[in-house]
Amino acid sequence: MNSFNRLIEIFSDFPGIGPRQAKRFVYFLLTKPPAYTGELLRAIENLKNNTQTCSSCYRIFNKNGGMATLCSICSDRNRDHSLLAVVSRDSDLESLEKSGSYNGLYFVLGGIVPILENDPEKYVRSRELFTSVEKRIGDGLTEVILAMSANADSENTGQFVDRLLVPFKERGLKISLLGRGLSTGTELEYSDADTLRNALKNRK
Amino acid sequence: MNSFNRLIEIFSDFPGIGPRQAKRFVYFLLTKPPAYTGELLRAIENLKNNTQTCSSCYRIFNKNGGMATLCSICSDRNRDHSLLAVVSRDSDLESLEKSGSYNGLYFVLGGIVPILENDPEKYVRSRELFTSVEKRIGDGLTEVILAMSANADSENTGQFVDRLLVPFKERGLKISLLGRGLSTGTELEYSDADTLRNALKNRK
Amino acid sequence: MNSFNRLIEIFSDFPGIGPRQAKRFVYFLLTKPPAYTGELLRAIENLKNNTQTCSSCYRIFNKNGGMATLCSICSDRNRDHSLLAVVSRDSDLESLEKSGSYNGLYFVLGGIVPILENDPEKYVRSRELFTSVEKRIGDGLTEVILAMSANADSENTGQFVDRLLVPFKERGLKISLLGRGLSTGTELEYSDADTLRNALKNRK
Amino acid sequence: MNSFNRLIEIFSDFPGIGPRQAKRFVYFLLTKPPAYTGELLRAIENLKNNTQTCSSCYRIFNKNGGMATLCSICSDRNRDHSLLAVVSRDSDLESLEKSGSYNGLYFVLGGIVPILENDPEKYVRSRELFTSVEKRIGDGLTEVILAMSANADSENTGQFVDRLLVPFKERGLKISLLGRGLSTGTELEYSDADTLRNALKNRK
Repeated sequence: MNSFNRLIEIFSDFPGIGPRQAKRFVYFLLTKPPAYTGELLRAIENLKNNTQTCSSCYRIFNKNGGMATLCSICSDRNRDHSLLAVVSRDSDLESLEKSGSYNGLYFVLGGIVPILENDPEKYVRSRELFTSVEKRIGDGLTEVILAMSANADSENTGQFVDRLLVPFKERGLKISLLGRGLSTGTELEYSDADTLRNALKNRK
Repeated sequence: MNSFNRLIEIFSDFPGIGPRQAKRFVYFLLTKPPAYTGELLRAIENLKNNTQTCSSCYRIFNKNGGMATLCSICSDRNRDHSLLAVVSRDSDLESLEKSGSYNGLYFVLGGIVPILENDPEKYVRSRELFTSVEKRIGDGLTEVILAMSANADSENTGQFVDRLLVPFKERGLKISLLGRGLSTGTELEYSDADTLRNALKNRK
Repeated sequence: MNSFNRLIEIFSDFPGIGPRQAKRFVYFLLTKPPAYTGELLRAIENLKNNTQTCSSCYRIFNKNGGMATLCSICSDRNRDHSLLAVVSRDSDLESLEKSGSYNGLYFVLGGIVPILENDPEKYVRSRELFTSVEKRIGDGLTEVILAMSANADSENTGQFVDRLLVPFKERGLKISLLGRGLSTGTELEYSDADTLRNALKNRK
Repeated sequence: MNSFNRLIEIFSDFPGIGPRQAKRFVYFLLTKPPAYTGELLRAIENLKNNTQTCSSCYRIFNKNGGMATLCSICSDRNRDHSLLAVVSRDSDLESLEKSGSYNGLYFVLGGIVPILENDPEKYVRSRELFTSVEKRIGDGLTEVILAMSANADSENTGQFVDRLLVPFKERGLKISLLGRGLSTGTELEYSDADTLRNALKNRK
């Protein structure tokens, strides 16, 4: 297949992009001077060289030329090492960081376990999480927060992690789930039964 | 003003209706036979005669020809009389009933107190609520649930009710707020800081 | 059935209104003082008394206390009596008037003939149109414009009217259709084949 | 700037992509194996080598290993060489081809001339168009179709091309514009005055 059509195919794989927009990307690139395309190529080529997966939380971070294997959060002594928030993706971690409400550590699972999936290990870093929690318990970890979105597959992922970490519960580890209830903007009149049930149960 | 234009004006007052749709309503009525319009007129005319505002919770209910002044919820001995959910509108009450998660009583405020409003009593049944809570405390009421939507004006309404009921707190009345956190479908990546803060705080 | 539920049913018939919004209308009316409801009742009651269907174009107009049977357009000697725009509804007529581009007369069919309908006369004023055109031809009518929206049922309605008026074509009456092509805002990239075909055919 | 942030910036330039989706693209690429990224890089690198700008209509086409400088449309003897559709972009050309209603030739301007722009030549291939029309007139060209979208800037582009080609009008070249009117799906009730004016003017 020629590069034109192949590139449309590849861009169609990008998250949220269909064939029509993929084609517009290709036409867009064709109108750009070689300097632009060259910079795009270099940025893609260097992307993995310039970034590093944190050896502790598996978050991706910029190396900025350094040799660090720990990200800025994991190496920050002022963070609360008794808390570990388990998230599905880097974007969830960023969202929690931006909220300014969390000062503990993270673990990035790298995916979501679909409901009824027989081989959950294929989707998430389950061994790495197990090892990491084991090690961190010695370092003062007391609570793992399952920081999952409120949809079926994400909840299933949380349940998988919960089962995975059962052995540590006996050793006193607390496993918690993000609170459910009314999120900002929720109108009672248009709320589903589940949200109302949680809002009532978690009233305070 | 003639009836045609006056009716457009009145329909434009209806919740969610602009002048263009109001005009379509009027044209719609003009195409209908007298029997249809007659039934509409009778239904509007009898609406208040056939309905009753509950003397206890101020909810509107169908009289169905009866003489009851108490609605079916307030007169139901199987409901939990220790709980009183204060809601803004009948539609909020209906939503909670449909969820099947609440078995206490209700009080319908009849409105929302806008932020920075100096005269909140204009908007809600504050005296009626005060009297009702006073009386119910003798009947076993132990908790008032502020069941408000999660927006600025509704939260302001909740705070107003909270202040109003301060005298009863000293007598042991608990005042609670619907739980905040992730509602069904909430994605971490797209959540606002407030929702994430609440979800973290209310984790369990 | 009680008035509360019957009124919800009736409002659910209104164009664009579902049961949920219909219920909000009913609650809205219940919060209003008798003076408001009274005015609504009077406006609905007088609607047909205060309006008149034009004896010539079947448009609805305000009587404003007068005895006229002809609407302001039909009785306006400055309008071009050689042109007759046949529209489905009053709202289409209003839209053409607002455009300021048409100075002829109108005929309001009062409906749309669905595709594959065997009994089109049920839906539109076909006899009245026939009679009206016959009479107007003597008064100088030379062209009937089928002013229909560009969707399947409306086009079918146009074809029905076209067949209905065949006898007058032999007597020299021109029957025209609104031009097809790019409407304001149409992007070539997102246009359907039909629109492009018409835009090419009708280029000038 | 590091590749991570630079790549987000570059993707944010892509048509229809904001910073948030650009970031998702970068995270997406980071999860992909080197084979995938490698193929993307090759496809971008070879894009211009594998495509060719047609020397006649300036359309981009796949070389498929050949040495042709004329695209398949320009070299097709069965196309109607008396018609030349001037379009802004390749995607407009594709849309017209897909409609199956046009069998003439094309010229791709490569852009749009914004309203009130003093230097229109910066935006479109005006010299190339002039030369091309001059040459084609000798080859039987009789009509140039300004095939522009129906928005302000595109119409301005059409007017610019119209002025540019004035010298050829004296030599008998016809310059036409795509027809305006109702496009598929247009409802009279919701149409703007311009569309209705055109639909009336272009009735037939």
